[in-house]
Amino acid sequence: MNRQPTPAAFAPISQLAADLRSGKATSVALTRACLARIAQYDGHFHSFLAVYEEEALAAAAQADQEIATGRWRGPLHGIPVALKDLVDLQGKPTTAGSPLLQDNVASQDAAIVERIRAAGGIVVGKTHMVQFALGAWGTNPHMGTPRNPAGDADDTLAPGGSSSGSAVAVAAHLVPWAIGSDTGGSVRVPAAFCGIVGFKPTIDALPRGGVYALSETLDSLGVLATSVDDALQCAKALKLDVAASEPMGLRIGYLEAEELGPLEPAVAQCLARNLQALKDAGFTLVPFRFPAPLVDFKAVTNAIMISEGAAVNDRFLDDPSLPIDPSVRQRLIAARATTVVQYMQARTTAAGWQRQFAQEMDRLGLSALAVPVTAAPAPRVQDVDHNLAPVHFTRPVNLLALCGISLPAGEDERGRPIGLQLVGQAGEDFALLAVAAQAEAALNTGKEARHA
Amino acid sequence: MNRQPTPAAFAPISQLAADLRSGKATSVALTRACLARIAQYDGHFHSFLAVYEEEALAAAAQADQEIATGRWRGPLHGIPVALKDLVDLQGKPTTAGSPLLQDNVASQDAAIVERIRAAGGIVVGKTHMVQFALGAWGTNPHMGTPRNPAGDADDTLAPGGSSSGSAVAVAAHLVPWAIGSDTGGSVRVPAAFCGIVGFKPTIDALPRGGVYALSETLDSLGVLATSVDDALQCAKALKLDVAASEPMGLRIGYLEAEELGPLEPAVAQCLARNLQALKDAGFTLVPFRFPAPLVDFKAVTNAIMISEGAAVNDRFLDDPSLPIDPSVRQRLIAARATTVVQYMQARTTAAGWQRQFAQEMDRLGLSALAVPVTAAPAPRVQDVDHNLAPVHFTRPVNLLALCGISLPAGEDERGRPIGLQLVGQAGEDFALLAVAAQAEAALNTGKEARHA
Repeated sequence: MNRQPTPAAFAPISQLAADLRSGKATSVALTRACLARIAQYDGHFHSFLAVYEEEALAAAAQADQEIATGRWRGPLHGIPVALKDLVDLQGKPTTAGSPLLQDNVASQDAAIVERIRAAGGIVVGKTHMVQFALGAWGTNPHMGTPRNPAGDADDTLAPGGSSSGSAVAVAAHLVPWAIGSDTGGSVRVPAAFCGIVGFKPTIDALPRGGVYALSETLDSLGVLATSVDDALQCAKALKLDVAASEPMGLRIGYLEAEELGPLEPAVAQCLARNLQALKDAGFTLVPFRFPAPLVDFKAVTNAIMISEGAAVNDRFLDDPSLPIDPSVRQRLIAARATTVVQYMQARTTAAGWQRQFAQEMDRLGLSALAVPVTAAPAPRVQDVDHNLAPVHFTRPVNLLALCGISLPAGEDERGRPIGLQLVGQAGEDFALLAVAAQAEAALNTGKEARHA
Repeated sequence: MNRQPTPAAFAPISQLAADLRSGKATSVALTRACLARIAQYDGHFHSFLAVYEEEALAAAAQADQEIATGRWRGPLHGIPVALKDLVDLQGKPTTAGSPLLQDNVASQDAAIVERIRAAGGIVVGKTHMVQFALGAWGTNPHMGTPRNPAGDADDTLAPGGSSSGSAVAVAAHLVPWAIGSDTGGSVRVPAAFCGIVGFKPTIDALPRGGVYALSETLDSLGVLATSVDDALQCAKALKLDVAASEPMGLRIGYLEAEELGPLEPAVAQCLARNLQALKDAGFTLVPFRFPAPLVDFKAVTNAIMISEGAAVNDRFLDDPSLPIDPSVRQRLIAARATTVVQYMQARTTAAGWQRQFAQEMDRLGLSALAVPVTAAPAPRVQDVDHNLAPVHFTRPVNLLALCGISLPAGEDERGRPIGLQLVGQAGEDFALLAVAAQAEAALNTGKEARHA
């Protein structure tokens, strides 16, 4: 029951790249197609905050010219991309989702933009996000909430956040891929809610210079795409700062019921089907325990993440007339009281857990863990409870400095997407992507078998 | 007017190394000489908290055997060393200068100890220090204050700290060199007070694993030695984690009077003589300004350093009956109130200053700065004012993540040593050591000329 109002518009990135390289397609035509789709559909989806038509077409023309003269920069050469609006683009404002920052014009490109340009990528625009990147439902009362393309047409599902616009832009096929950022799940949760792939690399595998920070300790840039191979093409072209790695084997860890905690029945059923599909595809499943109960990650993460976010945004918090999302403001103000003693003790706890996690993965010989992305599919926007955050399964990946990827893994009876998260050890991003490609194939086979 | 009660006992490390390598000397004999000097003199100096005679002699015998069979590990092979007692040594307690930690037995060697052993070094013992490394006068009311060998025999001068025992052990010629640590001046200040060389490398140029921390952000391990060449031999043998570098030229920055702030007249006169000697030796002196007045570094440093120290030692602070140096306890308790917002803002300020400092050094083409180590020579122990700390000129080096070295540069009319500090850019440790060797020669030439 797929109610996406826009058909898939783009071939896989590797195919687009082959067509561009061979001259069968041009970047200008592809970029025009994106811009046309944005113009046609984004009034509905509200995923773009700014579109740079002129600059994008000029960059596309240059990309075509380079390819025509025999210079090919790799799989992103000539391919359009959208940026979450916390990434600096020279001469453009970086709002971080807040009207307070609409005059915050960047004096130079962020490091990730330099990498995108070096790879030949075409920046078409910037996407909406949760204010200051602090929130995983994807809502934004001042700039507007992007509309999740998935689910029953009668519902407006929360898009997930904080990379809400980047996920929606990709899920609605307005761009082939987009940059997001992920501090506790902000790439993986919107990917799961919107039914696409969200890849959070190891911290600093993508450079953070020129990115409006939430948490220096926990922020990663990440990739929203429609397939694992697309994410892999991006990872290669962006030259992730990690060594090449391959999976140790076909052993995957999973959490037993008491480790998982409560799941919505559709998610539990989907997870069971997913694990069976992995088993059928030849994976060995091994029970795994995190170094502490997952609920314990909340306080430790927040002592670091929200207090760092309060430091970044401190200057906005004292004037109650400023337009700040009340759910964001309330959390930041509370976090101002966090002391350095509490913060450093949280970091020490996290460092201990990091060591234990790595030892346990090694001891069990695991290539990845398979865990849910969220305990429930996207709620309707009007049902969002801002006292909760759907990051129970995603924030440990940030706190433990791991890499993780969210895959579309099924949907519930109302057509709401459900994701499966694969988690890899720090620096083993390419091993994780290799496992994820196998898992994606296994889940698709399972799906076809079920539908047959 | 040198009242050091012990004569210089060791040849330069390069000479010791040549003698050991050629078989003219043995590590066992050298180690026995150290142990004998410690036994003879350290009752007076109180620099060693623990001496490991048996282990040291066994290691020395092994070093001799290796050399005899043609394996030479480099310039520290067979050379004794003392460790500040915040460095873990397997099976021994690490007290960090506090009786509270006398049962804190290390389960493995610190990373720096592994490097020392890989270089063939002989650990003879551990040295006293200021409690928790928080204090630059060198006093310790519970474990005892090491006795500064320098100055008039009627005075007992503060040894400087927090690496008090390491500086005294080297200054009294009980070991050829020692490991200290430096968070705001804790290697350079005791070196200056005791009249020796103190080298604080760039942060993490020496690995910190297994070291009892004061401040994760600002701690460096460092070297106490009696000459720049000895420090250089240590830096090479310990394989500093920085690239090779050479001075850009003979341009050195200095601070003008209003930048320096108040100096004791003997220090001001010594500095003027030192700068003249550098000029006479062919250096060009260029006025330099730090990115902010030096007084402004205090609050920014302390918001980071002492709050991090409070986190490390938090568990000891609530029970007033525990034996903690009151001057240390009071600073740590006050720092518990520091919030993450204040802390992160201090780090942001420091990061901005770091960039500005590097730009200014590059713009002026400077190889180093020449500044005082302290504004006054060592006070008498009974005159120490614990409301002050003699780190005005040393803490900016930590906050700006630079490297620095303290050289003996003169003495006042009471025979109290005065140091000159040379400061180099982050990672340019070997360039700094090269400049320091030239400066040391220039200062010695100046001294001889004055005495002639």
